[in-house]
Amino acid sequence: MTDFSFTLKKTEGMARRGEITTAHGKIQTPVFMPVGTAATVKAMTVDDVWATGAMIILANTYHLMLRPGPERVERFGGIRKMMGWEGPLLTDSGGFQVMSLGDLRTIDEDGVTFRSHLDGSKHRLTPERSTDIQRMLDATITMAFDECTPFPADHDVAASSMRMSMRWAERCRKAFQRRQGYGQFGIVQGSVYEDLRRESVEKLEALDFEGYAVGGLAVGEGQQAMFDTLEFTTPVMRADKPRYLMGVGKPGDIIGSIARGIDMFDCVMPTRSGRTGQGFTRRGPVNIKNARHADDPRPLDEQCQCPACTRYSRAYLHHLFRCDEVLGLMLLTRHNITYYQDITRAAREALDEGRFAAYHKEFDETYALGDIEALS
Amino acid sequence: MTDFSFTLKKTEGMARRGEITTAHGKIQTPVFMPVGTAATVKAMTVDDVWATGAMIILANTYHLMLRPGPERVERFGGIRKMMGWEGPLLTDSGGFQVMSLGDLRTIDEDGVTFRSHLDGSKHRLTPERSTDIQRMLDATITMAFDECTPFPADHDVAASSMRMSMRWAERCRKAFQRRQGYGQFGIVQGSVYEDLRRESVEKLEALDFEGYAVGGLAVGEGQQAMFDTLEFTTPVMRADKPRYLMGVGKPGDIIGSIARGIDMFDCVMPTRSGRTGQGFTRRGPVNIKNARHADDPRPLDEQCQCPACTRYSRAYLHHLFRCDEVLGLMLLTRHNITYYQDITRAAREALDEGRFAAYHKEFDETYALGDIEALS
Repeated sequence: MTDFSFTLKKTEGMARRGEITTAHGKIQTPVFMPVGTAATVKAMTVDDVWATGAMIILANTYHLMLRPGPERVERFGGIRKMMGWEGPLLTDSGGFQVMSLGDLRTIDEDGVTFRSHLDGSKHRLTPERSTDIQRMLDATITMAFDECTPFPADHDVAASSMRMSMRWAERCRKAFQRRQGYGQFGIVQGSVYEDLRRESVEKLEALDFEGYAVGGLAVGEGQQAMFDTLEFTTPVMRADKPRYLMGVGKPGDIIGSIARGIDMFDCVMPTRSGRTGQGFTRRGPVNIKNARHADDPRPLDEQCQCPACTRYSRAYLHHLFRCDEVLGLMLLTRHNITYYQDITRAAREALDEGRFAAYHKEFDETYALGDIEALS
Repeated sequence: MTDFSFTLKKTEGMARRGEITTAHGKIQTPVFMPVGTAATVKAMTVDDVWATGAMIILANTYHLMLRPGPERVERFGGIRKMMGWEGPLLTDSGGFQVMSLGDLRTIDEDGVTFRSHLDGSKHRLTPERSTDIQRMLDATITMAFDECTPFPADHDVAASSMRMSMRWAERCRKAFQRRQGYGQFGIVQGSVYEDLRRESVEKLEALDFEGYAVGGLAVGEGQQAMFDTLEFTTPVMRADKPRYLMGVGKPGDIIGSIARGIDMFDCVMPTRSGRTGQGFTRRGPVNIKNARHADDPRPLDEQCQCPACTRYSRAYLHHLFRCDEVLGLMLLTRHNITYYQDITRAAREALDEGRFAAYHKEFDETYALGDIEALS
């Protein structure tokens, strides 16, 4: 079995075309990873996820440690076996959800104590415990346990938060059990401050992770501040390791971040939006519940090859959402994941052919057009 | 195109093996028809419905007349086109749901006035309107508009209810537009009274429908009274037309009714149960939410070839239901529809091979065993 590795195949400006090799298959980058929070990409079968072109999915350590519990998952041979996903799987560290979902959380130098948002039961996560849980989940890629610095944070707060995360990263690296084809990623913090991001990158690279994530973005700073931060962060990161922008984002965020040197993305947006009636199209988002679609025989996105678009009218999708039918969210989720895979696949093809800048421009212009005209 | 027809291929006792030819395909009987209330078999794609072996599905006129409305469906070429189902489709008349779901309903000789359970809007259904709506929905099989006599009903009430339904049946037959390969079924009423059922059969057969349903059962009379009623009803029905027992039922009801001369069934039970965590197995129903399944690596039903059973453990299905994950109800619904198709397919094969009595006995005995032992 080949070991975990990254091959940089081509660049255009800061944008990169690469390939990650893992114990569970290869990943072409740039890549979008659908989120399978509780060991399921919500409202999709794994076959359908695979059929969209997804090459790796993400699962959430916080949710899985509460239900069904890491010991139980380990007995079943890991999350991938339990859910029937044969490709690579990345788990987050649980740190972000502890802060956003957990109750009565207290942080100290050693770790975080919190109560479950489900039943109030008390739990503790430390760098060592998070790393070990991710091993029990059999994650192909394990994330370092860190503190996601809130936004806004002044320089002092951001610095001390980042430095604690770096001390935790060192403990995570020590706790990580090396296995052929598995990898662990460190997470760059430092808010929107160039000196802190640079310091974070240096500290992490000394630990020699298999990849590096940019954390602490998409937390309210806005697209411009996110892009600005990437522009001074990715150039100081090693070129020979994959770069993962956590929790991002809208379609334009993803294409714009590829242009700024990012290789990997995850976001709940396509699945969550799919459940609330928002479909993504080449010409921007569409609310299928809007009455204008009730008699519209056209597909949601005529360029899309997913079943929702090739077989159904906007009118039928509208009807399903009006009636709260499960099939509506099944079809729209599948469409949205297909869309996210399509736009990243198109970015890879553009990079392969040396025309990413033109692709990026056309993408932004088409997306800004807004939905096709309503039928009169 | 061949016209609507029924071929009786084989009998064993009262049980029948047949084939219905329609404009939209052939149907092997005995057959179970999954219910697609609002133009979707809940939580399943039409491909998945097809893959279970389903040959015909049912949709509900009451729901579809309210949303999306028959005129809109007609513009889209009918329900089958709208939902992408290429096989035959049967619609009920709307009468049953008007009585069970509609508000402030009033019945007179001409028809029924009611208010929508959705928005209180006022609607009217008559034999002519129901028949015309079903034409607009492009139903392969149209059902006569009748009054489902409540249970219990004394002989006088049952007689006058049945006789009104028979007058309505005559109006339905007149209103029905003959189209090649399409059919219309009359509905036998008369509660549990042999003389009334016989009178109803005679009145309907004078109208020469393409098939006949037995209505007014599975409304609280219990399995024994239902079987007793079938035993004196089906023998007086024409042998050369399909017989459809509406709204039935539990697995044992279906196999027992096949033994009593019924060819067609529909019931929301497999889809509704699938959404609440009840899975049907050869050894009876299983509540997958029960804690005993949390660590069980075995399939729900080891004889079943559906994805829920061939690819997942009871533990994973349990986890999905505990977390209210949509995939849980998707998988369990698909399993239950597969199970209903499997037991009717097995009944057909047993009839083909002249061993239906043995199949029936083994089915009942295995079902009564109850679920496999819990793991210790």
